[in-house]
Amino acid sequence: MNSESIAEKVRNQAMVAREAARRLRSASTVEKNSALLAMATALERSSDDILAANQKDVVAVRAKGLSAALVDRLALDQKRLFAAAEGLREVAALPDPVGAMVSMGRRPNGLEVGKVRVPLGVIGIIYEARPNVTVDAAGLCLKAGNAVILRGGSEALHSNMAIVAAMSEALRSTALPEQAIQLIDNTDRASVQALMRQSGLVDVLIPRGGRGLISTVMENATVPVIQTGEGNCHIFVDKSADLNQARSIIINAKCQRPGVCNALETLLVHREIAEDLLPSVAQDLQAKEVTLKGCSKSQAIVPSLEEATFADWGTEYLDLILAIKVVDSLDEAIGHIEEYGTGHSEAILTNDYTNARRFLEMVDAAAVYVNTSTRFTDGQQFGLGAEIGISTQKLHARGPMGLEELTSTKFIIYGNGQIRE
Amino acid sequence: MNSESIAEKVRNQAMVAREAARRLRSASTVEKNSALLAMATALERSSDDILAANQKDVVAVRAKGLSAALVDRLALDQKRLFAAAEGLREVAALPDPVGAMVSMGRRPNGLEVGKVRVPLGVIGIIYEARPNVTVDAAGLCLKAGNAVILRGGSEALHSNMAIVAAMSEALRSTALPEQAIQLIDNTDRASVQALMRQSGLVDVLIPRGGRGLISTVMENATVPVIQTGEGNCHIFVDKSADLNQARSIIINAKCQRPGVCNALETLLVHREIAEDLLPSVAQDLQAKEVTLKGCSKSQAIVPSLEEATFADWGTEYLDLILAIKVVDSLDEAIGHIEEYGTGHSEAILTNDYTNARRFLEMVDAAAVYVNTSTRFTDGQQFGLGAEIGISTQKLHARGPMGLEELTSTKFIIYGNGQIRE
Repeated sequence: MNSESIAEKVRNQAMVAREAARRLRSASTVEKNSALLAMATALERSSDDILAANQKDVVAVRAKGLSAALVDRLALDQKRLFAAAEGLREVAALPDPVGAMVSMGRRPNGLEVGKVRVPLGVIGIIYEARPNVTVDAAGLCLKAGNAVILRGGSEALHSNMAIVAAMSEALRSTALPEQAIQLIDNTDRASVQALMRQSGLVDVLIPRGGRGLISTVMENATVPVIQTGEGNCHIFVDKSADLNQARSIIINAKCQRPGVCNALETLLVHREIAEDLLPSVAQDLQAKEVTLKGCSKSQAIVPSLEEATFADWGTEYLDLILAIKVVDSLDEAIGHIEEYGTGHSEAILTNDYTNARRFLEMVDAAAVYVNTSTRFTDGQQFGLGAEIGISTQKLHARGPMGLEELTSTKFIIYGNGQIRE
Repeated sequence: MNSESIAEKVRNQAMVAREAARRLRSASTVEKNSALLAMATALERSSDDILAANQKDVVAVRAKGLSAALVDRLALDQKRLFAAAEGLREVAALPDPVGAMVSMGRRPNGLEVGKVRVPLGVIGIIYEARPNVTVDAAGLCLKAGNAVILRGGSEALHSNMAIVAAMSEALRSTALPEQAIQLIDNTDRASVQALMRQSGLVDVLIPRGGRGLISTVMENATVPVIQTGEGNCHIFVDKSADLNQARSIIINAKCQRPGVCNALETLLVHREIAEDLLPSVAQDLQAKEVTLKGCSKSQAIVPSLEEATFADWGTEYLDLILAIKVVDSLDEAIGHIEEYGTGHSEAILTNDYTNARRFLEMVDAAAVYVNTSTRFTDGQQFGLGAEIGISTQKLHARGPMGLEELTSTKFIIYGNGQIRE
């Protein structure tokens, strides 16, 4: 297909999704929950087909010699698939965000002005080779009353087609339109380009993936985008910190799951406690096979550190690597984070009241922590229920996004003949 | 200047604004209010300079033969300027949105997770030849703790320079950085282009103006945009409506201020009451010099109507013109609004409970009204205080945007050594 007919096809899907979204506006919570439960059952019943399709994708990816990490993200087994289905049941159990009255009040002229939570409409999700995202995103979007257009990575195409076929089949048995969940089955770049430019039909795009994907979308989209992503996260150990606690938090933030966006990437240490803290922390981290890179001051304290270069301060390793810098003051730490941070998750470890408050106020990030691990930036951990991603922008949603972030609001106004003077 | 050096200059202003925004993060309400009051006084004290600069702009615009409406939007006199200054004092009197705790709770592991309102950072405002916007936007952005970069229309350049000079002068006498308010004094298109692409430095763009401006920004910006704008607003008169009330609401919505975005543009009338309503409404409207255009059914009832063409349904007249259509049902009215509306302000006039509820639920717009005039879509009227614009998009803010909509949130987390299992 040439890019024009791809764009045409995507546009048609967007129009069909918009029509489905119109029906979803008046879907009741019971209707949406029944659909989610039917989708979960359908995924389990179709597990043979889905796992066979997934096997096809995995074989093709292996034949291309792509990385083991990619294969791991792509591969499904019955346990993973059933976990995704169970996830839909959990979403069904969450409170419905739609219809909540955010505010309501009576104006001096008697008008009653309310602000009510409504679905966004049509949500486009652009993501990479993770078939579980297909299930999660469809479930969350549906629960919030939205139609969804899914554009997954080419490596997962067969898996995604089988998953969406099962979910669509399930929707046919419910009161909701099966067109509420749509997969773009063309994995040419032109289909992403087309999706990004459906303003008027698609209400929001959520790209989930690496820096390249996100910046392509930011650069080219005419549809509003919620930026998710990169976490170059810091922990600053202030001079008043409890050093034993600091050691355990640093190990946790770096090692518990190094490949995710809320993992620690650079450790900042106040010079007055650097000599007490760094040797033992370095030992702990090295025992867990973390490669350590340090500024000259930290190298002077722990000679086994590699030299950190300028580039290290700006790198999200997503790996067992940690950069370490000794700083002279709280303000130097805040300045470093301002310069190199990505506005994701930042922590101070301190027992100083004033410093804790200043760090919370001055650090401009989605999540700012005192005396705990950056790894908690997560919808479940924050009590939002399932999460569709972590926003690192400041509009609409910041930090973990749950069901509420998949809604908009509208003003409704009850009058009895008022006119404006 | 060539476009490269223009872009360079805009980038420098954005960097300076970012630095100012950093200081504003910790500005207290008292500091911000003092600055607003100082700015108001400075505008009054500098009124001779400002009015002289404005006169220069007005003379130039008149010499170019531009429209009287544009001259009216551009021209300042002492009364208008003092009203703008008074507006700053009103903003100082509004509650500070920053620092409000949106939510706070304790998680099972003892973490205290709160969501707190914080400034957005740097806001870019792109607007046309209205010097009062320079004052209003600067005041609202500052109160919400943001630095602002103003890019007004070329016709108002001298006025804007004089106004910003006075406000900056005032800031120098306060605790806040004068760089918090910046004017782009280059009116080449390249400066707008450059401003739209400062992602990483500018947090949000708010374009205020006509369709051309808004769509250029949507098309080209890499910075997140809040779309404001167009209102192709409808009133649907259901068969159970109180017809006397309907007449007064229709006249108000069309005539009270026809040039604004919440004015009525198309009237939809249920066929069962069309013969009772249309002749008298037409007479009222024609007495106020409104040109009426109608579908064939409405022409059959009121022969003096001009013929409405297909294009009329999609036109925001912003003038004393009204399109009229007779519809067979509530659902036909909702369908018409779905097809031609711009998601701004829509009203039903009815005494039918079920129809009122259905209209409120199914019409997808920023403000949906029962039995009152669309003219109320306004920050002051809704009780938000002053307004920076009316969002017609669904992300972040929808409808009138007040101070709260000029903020973001961040999660703050208090721990005592928690790590993630």
